[in-house]
Amino acid sequence: MVTGDFCLCIVGTFIRGLETTATYVPTNQEFVLNSPTITSMKYWPGGLGKTSNCCLVMAQLITQGEKRGIHLFFVQIRDIETHQPMPGVESGDIGTKFGFGSNDNGYLKLTNVRIPRENMLMRYSKVLEDGTYVPPKNQRIGYGTMVFVRAHIVTNSARGLAKACVIAIRYSAVRRQTEVSPGGMEAQILDYQTQQYKLLPLLASAFAMYFTGRYAEDYYEEIASISEIEEGKLDSLNQLHAVCAGLKAFVTWVCTAGIETCRLCCGGHGYSHASGLPKLYVFYTPGCTYEGENNVMMLQVARFLMKLYPDIKRNVPIHKFVDYLGADLTLKSCMTAEVAIGCLLKAYEHRAARLLSEAASRVESLVRSGKSHQEAWNASTVVLTWAAKAYCHTFVFRTFSQIVTDAAVDKNTKDVLTALCKLYAVHGILENLGEFIQDGFFSPKQVSLLKNKLADLLAEIRPNAVALVDAFDYPDKILDSCLGRYDGQVYQALYDYAKSSPLNQQEVLDSYHKYIKPAQLGQSTRHEQPMARL
Amino acid sequence: MVTGDFCLCIVGTFIRGLETTATYVPTNQEFVLNSPTITSMKYWPGGLGKTSNCCLVMAQLITQGEKRGIHLFFVQIRDIETHQPMPGVESGDIGTKFGFGSNDNGYLKLTNVRIPRENMLMRYSKVLEDGTYVPPKNQRIGYGTMVFVRAHIVTNSARGLAKACVIAIRYSAVRRQTEVSPGGMEAQILDYQTQQYKLLPLLASAFAMYFTGRYAEDYYEEIASISEIEEGKLDSLNQLHAVCAGLKAFVTWVCTAGIETCRLCCGGHGYSHASGLPKLYVFYTPGCTYEGENNVMMLQVARFLMKLYPDIKRNVPIHKFVDYLGADLTLKSCMTAEVAIGCLLKAYEHRAARLLSEAASRVESLVRSGKSHQEAWNASTVVLTWAAKAYCHTFVFRTFSQIVTDAAVDKNTKDVLTALCKLYAVHGILENLGEFIQDGFFSPKQVSLLKNKLADLLAEIRPNAVALVDAFDYPDKILDSCLGRYDGQVYQALYDYAKSSPLNQQEVLDSYHKYIKPAQLGQSTRHEQPMARL
Repeated sequence: MVTGDFCLCIVGTFIRGLETTATYVPTNQEFVLNSPTITSMKYWPGGLGKTSNCCLVMAQLITQGEKRGIHLFFVQIRDIETHQPMPGVESGDIGTKFGFGSNDNGYLKLTNVRIPRENMLMRYSKVLEDGTYVPPKNQRIGYGTMVFVRAHIVTNSARGLAKACVIAIRYSAVRRQTEVSPGGMEAQILDYQTQQYKLLPLLASAFAMYFTGRYAEDYYEEIASISEIEEGKLDSLNQLHAVCAGLKAFVTWVCTAGIETCRLCCGGHGYSHASGLPKLYVFYTPGCTYEGENNVMMLQVARFLMKLYPDIKRNVPIHKFVDYLGADLTLKSCMTAEVAIGCLLKAYEHRAARLLSEAASRVESLVRSGKSHQEAWNASTVVLTWAAKAYCHTFVFRTFSQIVTDAAVDKNTKDVLTALCKLYAVHGILENLGEFIQDGFFSPKQVSLLKNKLADLLAEIRPNAVALVDAFDYPDKILDSCLGRYDGQVYQALYDYAKSSPLNQQEVLDSYHKYIKPAQLGQSTRHEQPMARL
Repeated sequence: MVTGDFCLCIVGTFIRGLETTATYVPTNQEFVLNSPTITSMKYWPGGLGKTSNCCLVMAQLITQGEKRGIHLFFVQIRDIETHQPMPGVESGDIGTKFGFGSNDNGYLKLTNVRIPRENMLMRYSKVLEDGTYVPPKNQRIGYGTMVFVRAHIVTNSARGLAKACVIAIRYSAVRRQTEVSPGGMEAQILDYQTQQYKLLPLLASAFAMYFTGRYAEDYYEEIASISEIEEGKLDSLNQLHAVCAGLKAFVTWVCTAGIETCRLCCGGHGYSHASGLPKLYVFYTPGCTYEGENNVMMLQVARFLMKLYPDIKRNVPIHKFVDYLGADLTLKSCMTAEVAIGCLLKAYEHRAARLLSEAASRVESLVRSGKSHQEAWNASTVVLTWAAKAYCHTFVFRTFSQIVTDAAVDKNTKDVLTALCKLYAVHGILENLGEFIQDGFFSPKQVSLLKNKLADLLAEIRPNAVALVDAFDYPDKILDSCLGRYDGQVYQALYDYAKSSPLNQQEVLDSYHKYIKPAQLGQSTRHEQPMARL
């Protein structure tokens, strides 16, 4: 949006219900656009309010008296010379936000705005001069871009969490707090197991999610060639579409919560903008709501899995993303003290398969009890979401473990990555333990093994923690953090940051003379005997 | 800090290690204060940087050549007439923060600042004119205030979560999204089970935490009479001190995460300051770090419980706050389809007792394996924290259930409160399921019962959700939220909020002529054929 030419306005999860209309008038070969209600106004597009001259508007196409579904229209909203709104256009900034303060997020109201027929994006569906509607070969043809965008969000969210980990882990190696043994030196807070338990699994998640995002991007390039889409060969694309919807939700949740955990791990200083962490948070948290609200995404995954479920039960040959979901649920875990990645993977697959079958049985039993399928579904969305999350979690760990196993790196590097990969999995199991043991898949003894292994892995990774965040290679300029500096000169940087505060450019502020001094006069007696105030 | 007279500077969890010194000089009966290092500078106190004239400084008292521990000193830092810093005082604002933008949080550096002997707070310990140090009757005498402050933070955090619930639940009753049955009206998002699952347990938590905070405040008033403290009768106070340390951490974590959940439940609009939710978040999240960093607080609780553990095992008569921790761990749950509060309570008590004994065994076994007690402790802080959290969680549910059971209200009100209380407990069990079933305390059948009960409770509470948040009786003026308005006129309010944006007071901003238009000139060819850009 830098040059502010252009933005895309899509609002609402329920695209079918979009209220904005584009009605075709054959006589002058124009579309007339209207957003009739206050709820049909476009909200949030970046640069829309005061900056953009043109935008793409999603609207319900009406031609020959019939609704034809949602299509995209190119609309000029401001005069190129004067920048005044075009006739029938009302737009403006939506006001202050949690973040993106420098961004003009806008609203847009359209009243009988006329655009030429050519301004409809007609690659896949068309409106002819006489108003005849030519539908696309395939309704799902638009999915390709969505999949690509969501895969990109996964990779990008991983980068956000990685930056937060760099800051928090470097600071935790500088910051000292409380002597470990009486009289000894205060320990680096990164040496505290509780601090390791918060930060090191997030570090592992950043690696896991980054690898997963890159894998999804590559897989998209592989399958989603334009020609293939145009020929309507969409099977693998549908698989990837479901996975990316879920990954987008799963990863943005982990990223958002993780950045906050990193901030809180920096204590009070994490709250200062000097830490760079609040800025990261407000930048990444919108990922949970844009490009598909996360809960809606998870239910989309659940719907996809439930649709496959009959095939899964009948062990019909099935795409590699879901091939394990038909696994025998009576099996127990092969976990030993060694905690092999293979056994960890089996555990994640078992949990995902079990939660899916649990959700399916709930829906079935509600239907048997007389509810409509829709009612049964709506009364089961919580367990369906659990199943979808478990599926996404498994996908991330599967990808991570595959990449670590195949990585052509020296033994030391592989050992560290393997420890990180195991930590990701063991931590994930202990944080969701109920889902893994409800059916006795793990024995109590195996759970104790995992708990001990967790402590061992934290201690094993600790010496490499700083090297692992350095490996992300973010320059100080990008991190923009006094706490995350490569040179560790945290306290001098905080002091310099403070001294640069505008409030400090004057020793005594005008506000003192204007407000505080007059207020003090009324209390002078108290100042004469300050101790009396205690 | 409104009149900016006064603030308290305490920094660091490791109070013993505080670097600021106050050295007594008998010849002129003065203390000389110094913060020698950059890490000894005071940071964060509100109003300190540019506003306060006087402050209380915590410093290591040195008299007759000996360190006497941390004491409080009253220090004038600015001249009452000119507001210039006093000799040896350097102070300023620490810079921008996540929130509290209007608050001058300051730093303070003291170099040979001299104050009269009377400026030491000498209620409990004294320095005589000749420099003789008179210690307090009881070292823990200062705890009283800490306990009171933390109990207050619990109640106040509950209020913060309550406000977020009011906003999110009212908005969820106004906002409609996607037809539930084809062709039907779009449903209120509060009718979606996933939305209920996020919001209604938080509503229950707000009630639970508020009742708990009020209980702790009352109990403090009951036991902590000044006379009792001064006589050094501190047994009940020590119990309450441990509980309040843990509750402060437990509740601020729930409050902070809960406000964000409420914000995300409002979709994109939650991100706008028009929602009022970002402001709530940045106001309450510091509660996790101030007045005792949460992880440190939890370990304090764990230390307290571990100290009692031998008595607990020997079934020595013990304070009512911990009386259940010696329960027989071989017992199984009495849970039936009715899901009685008594059985829920037993489950929480069992989990807390089991996690404590699990943590104790880990420490013991590490000691047996040759580690020092300190090493064993440091290698077990994660499981110790789990035990402490379970203890706090039980305390909150115990208090909530007790108050609901005893409440003298009509049957309908009691039914709703009971459902809310059960939801709090059932949700807490399912969110921490592993801790409740690792030892087979619940059978798989009982877990299924609880999962079904959860769905039933959400459906049961839904019709009263709006009434329950209205019951908090926060006026619109306090909520300051377009989404949480009592009258439900959300969209008009958002539109008005947008129109009031400073950016909208001019149709074409100066920045257009300054930046955008020149940038466009370089692209004019593109504007002549806008479609070419696609």
